[in-house]
Amino acid sequence: MFGSRLSGALRRAQCRAHHFSTTSTTLSANASKRVIFSGIQPTGILHLGNYLGAISNWVKLQNEATADDDVIFSIVGWHALTLPQNPKELSKSRANMLATLLAFGIDPKKSTVFHQEDNQCHAELAWILSCITPVGKLRRMTTWKARLADSRNANDESEVDESMLNTGLFTYPVLQAADILAYRATHVPVGEDQTQHLELSRDLAENFNRTFNSKKRFFPIPTQLITPCRRVLSLKDPSSKMSKSAPDVSSRILLTDTSSQIERKIKGAVTDSTPGISYDPVNRPGTSNLLSILSACTGETVDQIVPRYEGKGHGHLKKDVAEALECLMKSPREEFHRLQEEQGFLASIAAEGAAKAKERSSKTLKAVREMIGLY
Amino acid sequence: MFGSRLSGALRRAQCRAHHFSTTSTTLSANASKRVIFSGIQPTGILHLGNYLGAISNWVKLQNEATADDDVIFSIVGWHALTLPQNPKELSKSRANMLATLLAFGIDPKKSTVFHQEDNQCHAELAWILSCITPVGKLRRMTTWKARLADSRNANDESEVDESMLNTGLFTYPVLQAADILAYRATHVPVGEDQTQHLELSRDLAENFNRTFNSKKRFFPIPTQLITPCRRVLSLKDPSSKMSKSAPDVSSRILLTDTSSQIERKIKGAVTDSTPGISYDPVNRPGTSNLLSILSACTGETVDQIVPRYEGKGHGHLKKDVAEALECLMKSPREEFHRLQEEQGFLASIAAEGAAKAKERSSKTLKAVREMIGLY
Repeated sequence: MFGSRLSGALRRAQCRAHHFSTTSTTLSANASKRVIFSGIQPTGILHLGNYLGAISNWVKLQNEATADDDVIFSIVGWHALTLPQNPKELSKSRANMLATLLAFGIDPKKSTVFHQEDNQCHAELAWILSCITPVGKLRRMTTWKARLADSRNANDESEVDESMLNTGLFTYPVLQAADILAYRATHVPVGEDQTQHLELSRDLAENFNRTFNSKKRFFPIPTQLITPCRRVLSLKDPSSKMSKSAPDVSSRILLTDTSSQIERKIKGAVTDSTPGISYDPVNRPGTSNLLSILSACTGETVDQIVPRYEGKGHGHLKKDVAEALECLMKSPREEFHRLQEEQGFLASIAAEGAAKAKERSSKTLKAVREMIGLY
Repeated sequence: MFGSRLSGALRRAQCRAHHFSTTSTTLSANASKRVIFSGIQPTGILHLGNYLGAISNWVKLQNEATADDDVIFSIVGWHALTLPQNPKELSKSRANMLATLLAFGIDPKKSTVFHQEDNQCHAELAWILSCITPVGKLRRMTTWKARLADSRNANDESEVDESMLNTGLFTYPVLQAADILAYRATHVPVGEDQTQHLELSRDLAENFNRTFNSKKRFFPIPTQLITPCRRVLSLKDPSSKMSKSAPDVSSRILLTDTSSQIERKIKGAVTDSTPGISYDPVNRPGTSNLLSILSACTGETVDQIVPRYEGKGHGHLKKDVAEALECLMKSPREEFHRLQEEQGFLASIAAEGAAKAKERSSKTLKAVREMIGLY
């Protein structure tokens, strides 16, 4: 139902339909009030892996939320500091990430969207939580090694050692717990790579409740909403994830890529020499990655897609993937470029979001201060 | 010139003279503007060791400051969280510590005096600094072991192990650096036991300047003003410092001790059986401690005091020490009790102090955010 055979007009109609169709199914049967929180770092231009792995799910959650739910998304600049950043680029990325979220459909009327560093409550709560976090627990976290390895394009974690570790990267999961608990969040949509961190947030919530608030459960124990597994792989090396830090820019599709850039990158995607198209992530990772991307773009399952390629080759598949991607990215890309010219508007959205975030988290912190004796 | 031979009226006059005489000498020849910062934890009632070791020096610094200088004192509640606290007691200690500082002569018109936890800038800057603090540097700090040992009344640091360590206690020196740098302090009056921490603050200031502000030195490199060595020892075990956590309350003189409690505690102080009075800290630690206390109370040197006890024994010395202590503590004690009844007044002083502290540190943080790219 989706691919190169569609006429332009029909395709545009379907593009539109797809952008909104993700909002129609109900994700959760839980009728009680939810507070949904998640965060994203403001580093570089968003790529397809970020969109399919996180933002598309945020938009879905936002649009499916009931009037009782609170949906809160933070652009977490303080987390970005845990690896070296170019200050000018970081500042640009910060505004770009807000524009990106809005361009993809995060709606400040429905969600609270703000910059973490505009709300000092996160840092205050992080300090307080750090005083009930055993150092041993942080030491057992494996994520900092992965992040260091990733940032240095090391092949694996054994290439990085602890001498490179700064305190912020080591205590990162405590700030993440503070991000979540400052809003007494109940649901946290994050990828599986964040399970260990969310476990710490849960531990800290329980530890705090037990220590300071034994009769009531002040902090809800947050539930991880595992983002539907859409692990987008590098177009150049399908053994690794699509990553903003890989040296070869043609390994990733960026929000800012033009139609012809998308076409070129997909055309150059590494596949294999096996004839025909089949889904086999182990033996045909490149081909399977393209099928996954096409599936994510169209909303069809891979099983629905594969039969259409009987007797066809990679050329056909790549053409369809490029078209589906253009269909997915065109409107957000245009909106992103439009918003980039509206820095005053972005600043006002950020200020409104920060005010809403502060109002809410200040209540949490006031109660916390009373419970721990700092009042 | 000072002791049991004085008449009541003369003694009262001298008491008064002594309280103010500490203000008359000039501490620093540096004519340029100074920003002096120090902090004290709000735990328990202040004892003589705290007063002679820190607060007396703060009052001196405040009263000798020029109109150009800024003098800032913080009651650091967040630091107190690094060891377990009873929330109700912590809350009381917080107000009590403010009353104590005022009772001893810290003047909110001359100094900025505030609760650390009323100014979130400290926590924000602590996070930012943590991202340029190598974990290895914190690991080499020895102070957390000493603090754990002290809090558990362990005999020495070998009795505590890292499994007891929480992240707040481990990263404490980073928050301390933030306390200092948030005001771009130039001078920090702290004891010698804090030299290692101040060294970290200096390193972080330099590291920040080098990384983000290479052309100008945004953060001054803070200078330690070593508090004149007034190591007050336990009255019961003169091999250790006077401490708020030692189980035997008669080992310490508290601000709230009455005249007769002071007399009883000094009478019961451990000395030795050597006849006569001489100053010999190694072989006669108890006797020497009493001489040191008397010297600190009267402003005389030990050499001036000792000859007065020719042919006299510990009874005479103890009587004079008790009188000198009563003379030193009477007026602050009365003022402390008066202020304890004025919680509204204390709250308004705290609020004014916090507003002043925030105004100043917000400027620092605004500049910091611009330098690191979070704007």
